[in-house]
Amino acid sequence: MNRNRSSSFTTTKYGTMSRYSNNKIDSFSENEDTVPIGSLNILSAKYESLDYEVVENFVYRDEERKKGYQYVVKKNFVRWIIFFWIGVITATVGIIIDLSIENIADFKFSHVKQYIEECNQKNCLWRPYILLLVYNVVPVLIGSTLVAYVEPVALGSGIPQVKCYLNGIKIPRLVRIKTLFIKVIGVITTVVGGMCGGKEGPMIHAGAVIAAGISQGKSTTFNKDFGVLNYFREDNEKRDFVSGGAAAGVAAAFGSPVGGVLFSLEEGASFWNQGLTWRIFFASMISTFTLNVVLSAYHGHPGELTYWGLLNFGKFNNFALSYEIFELPIFVIMGIIGGLTGALFCHLNYKLTVFRMRHLVSRWKKVLEAILVCCSTATVGFLLMLWRNDCKPSGLDPTKYAVQLNCNDGEYNYMASLWLQVPEASVRSFFHDPEESLDVATLVYFAIAYYLLTIWTYGLSVSAGLFIPCLATGAAWGRLIGIGVQFIFPGADVGKYALIGAASQLGGAVRMTISLTVILIEATGNITFGLPLMICLLTAKWIGDYFTESIYDIHIQLSGIPLMAWDPPPLSSNIYANEVMSHPVAVFKSKETVGQIIDTLKTYTYNGFPVVDGIFNLDSEESYCNNYKPNGRLRGLILRSQLIVLLQNKVFNEVPSAWDNVSLTTFRQDYPRYSNIDSIEILESERHYTIDLLRFMNPSPYIVQHMASLPRIFRLFRAMGLRHIVVVNDSNEVVGMVTRKDLTRYRVWRHRGTLGVVELRISAKL
Amino acid sequence: MNRNRSSSFTTTKYGTMSRYSNNKIDSFSENEDTVPIGSLNILSAKYESLDYEVVENFVYRDEERKKGYQYVVKKNFVRWIIFFWIGVITATVGIIIDLSIENIADFKFSHVKQYIEECNQKNCLWRPYILLLVYNVVPVLIGSTLVAYVEPVALGSGIPQVKCYLNGIKIPRLVRIKTLFIKVIGVITTVVGGMCGGKEGPMIHAGAVIAAGISQGKSTTFNKDFGVLNYFREDNEKRDFVSGGAAAGVAAAFGSPVGGVLFSLEEGASFWNQGLTWRIFFASMISTFTLNVVLSAYHGHPGELTYWGLLNFGKFNNFALSYEIFELPIFVIMGIIGGLTGALFCHLNYKLTVFRMRHLVSRWKKVLEAILVCCSTATVGFLLMLWRNDCKPSGLDPTKYAVQLNCNDGEYNYMASLWLQVPEASVRSFFHDPEESLDVATLVYFAIAYYLLTIWTYGLSVSAGLFIPCLATGAAWGRLIGIGVQFIFPGADVGKYALIGAASQLGGAVRMTISLTVILIEATGNITFGLPLMICLLTAKWIGDYFTESIYDIHIQLSGIPLMAWDPPPLSSNIYANEVMSHPVAVFKSKETVGQIIDTLKTYTYNGFPVVDGIFNLDSEESYCNNYKPNGRLRGLILRSQLIVLLQNKVFNEVPSAWDNVSLTTFRQDYPRYSNIDSIEILESERHYTIDLLRFMNPSPYIVQHMASLPRIFRLFRAMGLRHIVVVNDSNEVVGMVTRKDLTRYRVWRHRGTLGVVELRISAKL
Repeated sequence: MNRNRSSSFTTTKYGTMSRYSNNKIDSFSENEDTVPIGSLNILSAKYESLDYEVVENFVYRDEERKKGYQYVVKKNFVRWIIFFWIGVITATVGIIIDLSIENIADFKFSHVKQYIEECNQKNCLWRPYILLLVYNVVPVLIGSTLVAYVEPVALGSGIPQVKCYLNGIKIPRLVRIKTLFIKVIGVITTVVGGMCGGKEGPMIHAGAVIAAGISQGKSTTFNKDFGVLNYFREDNEKRDFVSGGAAAGVAAAFGSPVGGVLFSLEEGASFWNQGLTWRIFFASMISTFTLNVVLSAYHGHPGELTYWGLLNFGKFNNFALSYEIFELPIFVIMGIIGGLTGALFCHLNYKLTVFRMRHLVSRWKKVLEAILVCCSTATVGFLLMLWRNDCKPSGLDPTKYAVQLNCNDGEYNYMASLWLQVPEASVRSFFHDPEESLDVATLVYFAIAYYLLTIWTYGLSVSAGLFIPCLATGAAWGRLIGIGVQFIFPGADVGKYALIGAASQLGGAVRMTISLTVILIEATGNITFGLPLMICLLTAKWIGDYFTESIYDIHIQLSGIPLMAWDPPPLSSNIYANEVMSHPVAVFKSKETVGQIIDTLKTYTYNGFPVVDGIFNLDSEESYCNNYKPNGRLRGLILRSQLIVLLQNKVFNEVPSAWDNVSLTTFRQDYPRYSNIDSIEILESERHYTIDLLRFMNPSPYIVQHMASLPRIFRLFRAMGLRHIVVVNDSNEVVGMVTRKDLTRYRVWRHRGTLGVVELRISAKL
Repeated sequence: MNRNRSSSFTTTKYGTMSRYSNNKIDSFSENEDTVPIGSLNILSAKYESLDYEVVENFVYRDEERKKGYQYVVKKNFVRWIIFFWIGVITATVGIIIDLSIENIADFKFSHVKQYIEECNQKNCLWRPYILLLVYNVVPVLIGSTLVAYVEPVALGSGIPQVKCYLNGIKIPRLVRIKTLFIKVIGVITTVVGGMCGGKEGPMIHAGAVIAAGISQGKSTTFNKDFGVLNYFREDNEKRDFVSGGAAAGVAAAFGSPVGGVLFSLEEGASFWNQGLTWRIFFASMISTFTLNVVLSAYHGHPGELTYWGLLNFGKFNNFALSYEIFELPIFVIMGIIGGLTGALFCHLNYKLTVFRMRHLVSRWKKVLEAILVCCSTATVGFLLMLWRNDCKPSGLDPTKYAVQLNCNDGEYNYMASLWLQVPEASVRSFFHDPEESLDVATLVYFAIAYYLLTIWTYGLSVSAGLFIPCLATGAAWGRLIGIGVQFIFPGADVGKYALIGAASQLGGAVRMTISLTVILIEATGNITFGLPLMICLLTAKWIGDYFTESIYDIHIQLSGIPLMAWDPPPLSSNIYANEVMSHPVAVFKSKETVGQIIDTLKTYTYNGFPVVDGIFNLDSEESYCNNYKPNGRLRGLILRSQLIVLLQNKVFNEVPSAWDNVSLTTFRQDYPRYSNIDSIEILESERHYTIDLLRFMNPSPYIVQHMASLPRIFRLFRAMGLRHIVVVNDSNEVVGMVTRKDLTRYRVWRHRGTLGVVELRISAKL
């Protein structure tokens, strides 16, 4: 089951395949040893799958026999309680983030504004500039240091990582409470530090951590096990809760409970379960509601419930969002622009990320870059304020920190007020500010500056999301187009075009179409505007996909994470299981010696081992025709984690006392972090003891025959959320194993109207 | 594979099982021959599954090899086009229904109103009564005759049937164009005939038919094959389109595109596919948009786009739908009331349906009952008008056909105006009419009368939905509660309570929670009111489920349709494949004689036959230990429909010419209605010819081992949308087959806080 051997085997096979197939699959014939940095066509060998399959072994059946239906009812009830708390606590975290940012930013901007007003006359504008720098650099330094040195998985928005987790990939430390702390501090510092980042994406990650934390009744960070809820200590149960948490995060971030549910489904669960979906919806509703109640009360309107999410688009009036049919083509054009700018965004950020992977590897460099971007952002903003004298009469100052900078008395500098507020507020300004207040030039400069700064910011060692900066950029150029439309059709509302622009820009970058439409509908609070939003998002997605992958997918591919696609590669039914699988397979006999188990676990890194009878069945003729050695008749499948638990607890046939204490709880004790095989101490005398694997193995793992096609294996794997599929021959003898990496190796690309399949390389070095 | 034998075998086995299991499964030991009418615990043997699995045989792989990736791109593009047209045509059908009802009802009510006004003074009120009867009976007679005599599957709303179709069950004639015609006429006549039925539910069925029709490029009703789109002639492709059609139907009916998508997912697809969902959303949006454009233009506001769906809740102002936290408990109480009345509704309708199954079997009796209900509805309405002198000053007549009946000059009879309008308009009256216009007594009488009439109407031989009558009943009692709340908290808006009441009543009856919440949010056009709607719907569902199944599920169970649940029965991992499966199995050799194939097809009704090598392997020892005869080593699975096509086209090894023309098109030609085996003519001499099944069989069907547990088989079957699972022993020899009925036999019931599993009987007589 040597990976390299297996891979070269299939490459050879492809040579044979393509002779009688028109559909050539590009395969990499480069030297296996070089891993070009920035390649999107390499899978990292280090990512493992989650175990969604319930192992129905004797121990499990034993436990089930002891419990009555009452237990099922109770467990179900507890699930609802947990989802309730996921909603409440996610909202609480959202509130903490929101209020911290609001208060710190308020303090900062008031202080800076005061200095600017003082210095405007005295020609000492370097003083507020320095002040702004200090106010920005200090928090960003804290945040980026924490992310770089303490918990790198808290980097960015966390959306790609949560997406991978829901897809079934184990991302180490993703859902630990420590990560949540770093993330919360990171988001607050980033937004307060004036960088082009939002607080919404990280809420999704926060929700996921909270869900994982509550549902497990223990915390690795605090080294505390409350001993409760241990029946939820399984990957499949945990994933259900995490999808609820992610949804609750979306709900809190955007005030969008339905959008939250759709996000979780779009990015995560392949199997739609009515009961689960309803619980996810419940958590989302509770989350939105809690946030709303608290924020409304905080802002002095208890009971009015007008704060639907962290992101607040402000109130569009009904007139603003009505549209005529002739406007639909304009929305399509804006979608095209969004798709193009989005694709360019992805491409430039990809180049930048590759540069970072090459040259900014050490932690201090990462922190330094964050500081550099932070200073640049402040400088660009400050220079634009000074340079663009966009003076407006003071009556029209809808922004909070209007300053007179370079303007006459009774006027204020609009460009300055755009930069002297948090990005969300700028988005609202573009949506709602009166027509007179925003000049064309101001919009152009803002859009370009913000677009470039956002590209530079995403992927930095700070915690921040992409939603708000994209929305701000898009809103700026959308409003520009609105002003253009007004020339032709006077009376058109520019705010509406700003909204469409914002949606197009965001859609062009992230390409999350269904949930994003619903999120924006809910954030806008207006259902009638759904069709225009959908049209522009769909156009932006199509145009963007024509050129690049989504920004999230690019980062996932750069990390070599084996994300499963939704569908098997097209026209691949002539690829058979024996070309897909890894082999030969390390197997165990049904009654295996401890020594053999330990040696095998130490030799191989695999996580699942078939249990077989009669290794090397030489009589079986057909096996040899197919060029691979069969490994005996399949009896079941045992997991590495189970073997480790068995060894740790010394559940040997020769030690009868150990048998009494073996129950499901024994196996759940260490979930999800089992010991390493090297740390397990076994006496030399015990190496000859045996373990009865029949009792603990999964007696009926999912299997496919060696004649099964790639699409068939793929669908089985995807729909059932599997980690291992055993490949058997006609006599039910094990001939290979299929894992996630074997399947994700075949990746479909769709660019510029064509489509193809590329075979990725798997490397342990990425 | 005798069903009775298999069933009694498992019953015996259960006796053994329960000895070492605490979780007793109730099994029926009654005489197999009696089928008690009205039993909910019998599955009908007549329903077949759809074939979602793609058969990847040599022919398929051959075709795939010939097509390039360009073909995949094209096919995908055509899918989008089809979904576009599904949206447009579904909306068109909705518009036809809406405008027909509006115009005919307008004519009717104006005429009746005129007579009432004339006769009010002259004491000849019997004349308008007779007129109303005639106006009602004539359309209902037409509609119910069509439904009873021409197409019984057009009965009711069609929602349960569409739900079953999406679940994977073949419902004969459900998606034919003829059914659509009958349904459209049926709905128009029912609503025009003044019965307690809505036009919204049938839109879902209409959308499903349209989708199936467009996507197949042919019509059985018109006996016309356009010869296009034959690559979509597969059950799995067709189902995808039908889910889009159902969603488009919901979108058109309620102006709820997101709700439509969620409906399709909630009721249908088990496997969530991003691409498909996005296309479904697209069709829904197009459908809503088309309906909106046309209806807005028709009503003289082109471009304003204010007609979002057939069901129009009218415009709530923002004040009306704001709520305070103290109101949430009231909403919970209303949810409880809705759950109770909903459960009673289901129970009474169940009793009535059983009565109908017993005594109203012949068609003329069904038509007669429809006429009787129609007359009763008219009579009850007329009596209430005469009896309740609910006179209001004429200034306050928000309804369209206000009459002076029994009132002084300058006044109008409110009760009369409630009955002299279509039910949707009554719902709007309860939501929006000024507080002074509705008396408590009027509401009480209306609610009770409508509630009972709706129970009587549902299940009649007419096409009509349940949504509107439930909403009207609920709105009436909801408004009553609103009036009560006003006593304690003056200033509360009664319309809001009417809305909650409507939602609770509907939720208590149909229990479709997620999609219903979103549908109501979208129909109301107000997102902030989502939480109260969710709370009352959730409460109504919980309370309702405590007592009965949903009204749809009751009707599905009464018909014995083998609907797959979402999850396997709990605590059933000690039920093994060999207890679930049917056996012995009829199998074929890989090269089988024509005579043998014909005899087997005539003897058995099964639809899938394993292809095996070496029938009766006597050497295999372990097989006999398990008490069942193995059937040779599994090579593949061949379907009845494939065999029929092979026989029809005489694809015999001895007739080389026939081989040239065999392609996938040959198999798709007759889809979905293949000939019966009895109608196939084979010469006596051809009976000794052979067919090479290896070329056409599915070479790697999904299999489970005989040790697999029920939950494992269930999940595989559910997630992959299978029709057959082959059960093999340790040597890969066929020992049994699992089909939908084998799995749906185990049904979970949850009532009054407990839960259990009942084993259903399968009967060919239902």
